[in-house]
Amino acid sequence: MHNDRIKRLVALQQKSQLRRDSGIVVVEGRRELKHCIAAGHEVVAVYHCPDLTGDVPGYGSPCYEVTREVYEKIAYRGSTEGIIAEVHPHPLTLTDLQLPRYPLVMVLEAVEKPGNLGAVLRSADAAPADAVIVCDPLTDLYNPNIIRSSIGAIFTVPTVCCTSAECIQYLKTHDIQVLTAQLQDSHPYYATDMRRGTAIVMGTESTGLTQAWRDAADAHIRIPMRGLLDSLNVSVSAAILLFEAVRQRENCAVG
Amino acid sequence: MHNDRIKRLVALQQKSQLRRDSGIVVVEGRRELKHCIAAGHEVVAVYHCPDLTGDVPGYGSPCYEVTREVYEKIAYRGSTEGIIAEVHPHPLTLTDLQLPRYPLVMVLEAVEKPGNLGAVLRSADAAPADAVIVCDPLTDLYNPNIIRSSIGAIFTVPTVCCTSAECIQYLKTHDIQVLTAQLQDSHPYYATDMRRGTAIVMGTESTGLTQAWRDAADAHIRIPMRGLLDSLNVSVSAAILLFEAVRQRENCAVG
Repeated sequence: MHNDRIKRLVALQQKSQLRRDSGIVVVEGRRELKHCIAAGHEVVAVYHCPDLTGDVPGYGSPCYEVTREVYEKIAYRGSTEGIIAEVHPHPLTLTDLQLPRYPLVMVLEAVEKPGNLGAVLRSADAAPADAVIVCDPLTDLYNPNIIRSSIGAIFTVPTVCCTSAECIQYLKTHDIQVLTAQLQDSHPYYATDMRRGTAIVMGTESTGLTQAWRDAADAHIRIPMRGLLDSLNVSVSAAILLFEAVRQRENCAVG
Repeated sequence: MHNDRIKRLVALQQKSQLRRDSGIVVVEGRRELKHCIAAGHEVVAVYHCPDLTGDVPGYGSPCYEVTREVYEKIAYRGSTEGIIAEVHPHPLTLTDLQLPRYPLVMVLEAVEKPGNLGAVLRSADAAPADAVIVCDPLTDLYNPNIIRSSIGAIFTVPTVCCTSAECIQYLKTHDIQVLTAQLQDSHPYYATDMRRGTAIVMGTESTGLTQAWRDAADAHIRIPMRGLLDSLNVSVSAAILLFEAVRQRENCAVG
């Protein structure tokens, strides 16, 4: 019946070029879709499998029933949810951000693995961070792996893509201190005051931060690692730094 | 030539029952093997692919050259390393642990996903924790997924498997306070003193801690989550808690 639609849906998940050209992305899962809609993105079409899901809320857009067999073909992460949608996202830009007086911002430069960005977004939702800014990304923000690994946090946390130069200018203009996570010339993160407007900036998994960020830093911070291995996962490091900022802002210190 | 050996190697990676029965596990990667040997485990046989690896250090055990084609068949995580070994591990027990005066111990009850345990071990190496105790595990400690996701931390961090009852008794006997991570009846983790001997105890991803642990607790702690989603990954939570203990022990507080 709607075989062409199904083919396109699968292609949208697999091909970032098609997502870019069409301006359409794919969102899977009831919870993810709920947060996506709440964030103001526009649902273009919904596919649901009555075998897997009960009532489908009205999304104000065409809704197609698919068989279990078809659903399993289009579902990116298995057949647990039964709902998948085409969405026309309205990505935020820096000027859209509405930050509090002393914002806490997470900046990731050119993060390589979608799963890592997803995990950072999850921690940013929980902390919460007021925004996540992804600079010079190597993947599009609505990569199915990012949506999935963020369990929807890509829609709950204000998230912006821009260049590093734009981001640095934005942070300087808004009086947000730049703390770069790096091993060289750095202080332990817990010795650094994060109670004023603060951006925590982390580089790629493999090569770290570019010189532009190191030069733009108000302070360089590091997580002391005293073990035999040499690195913490980027999402674990991001969580440690974000939650230290939260702790400081609670003015509740032991030690 | 040694076709039977190759078949067995693959089976050892796939079948926990075979690992249990034979007492042999598989360790892949040069770095992982180095830490494995340093931890006192016994290498039974080494397989290496001369196309992929240069010199092979003498491991004091039979070493078999394999072709690239065979290596790709036996390698669990792709062909980047070129070294894979059969190892007879000497697992630690609680009585083997040699802890400092005020130890920091990470306890995981029945963690479900090997990748999560691996990630916790990585953070435990970095903090460092003095030991990781895995209670009533649903998987064997030398599951290839755990070795891989821990990037060898399973060998650098003293890690013990036991029952929850044994672990509780051990902690009480050694005057180590039990801090259970749970949402109910709990205080923010940063309001809890972790400078004395401390065990941070976390439950499974799906059902949390059993009642025995809740009853055994000296305090219940939680990571405040203020976002729209409801949970942090267990490995992220573990890292936040471990590094708060480290921060407190450095007596360096902002806020």
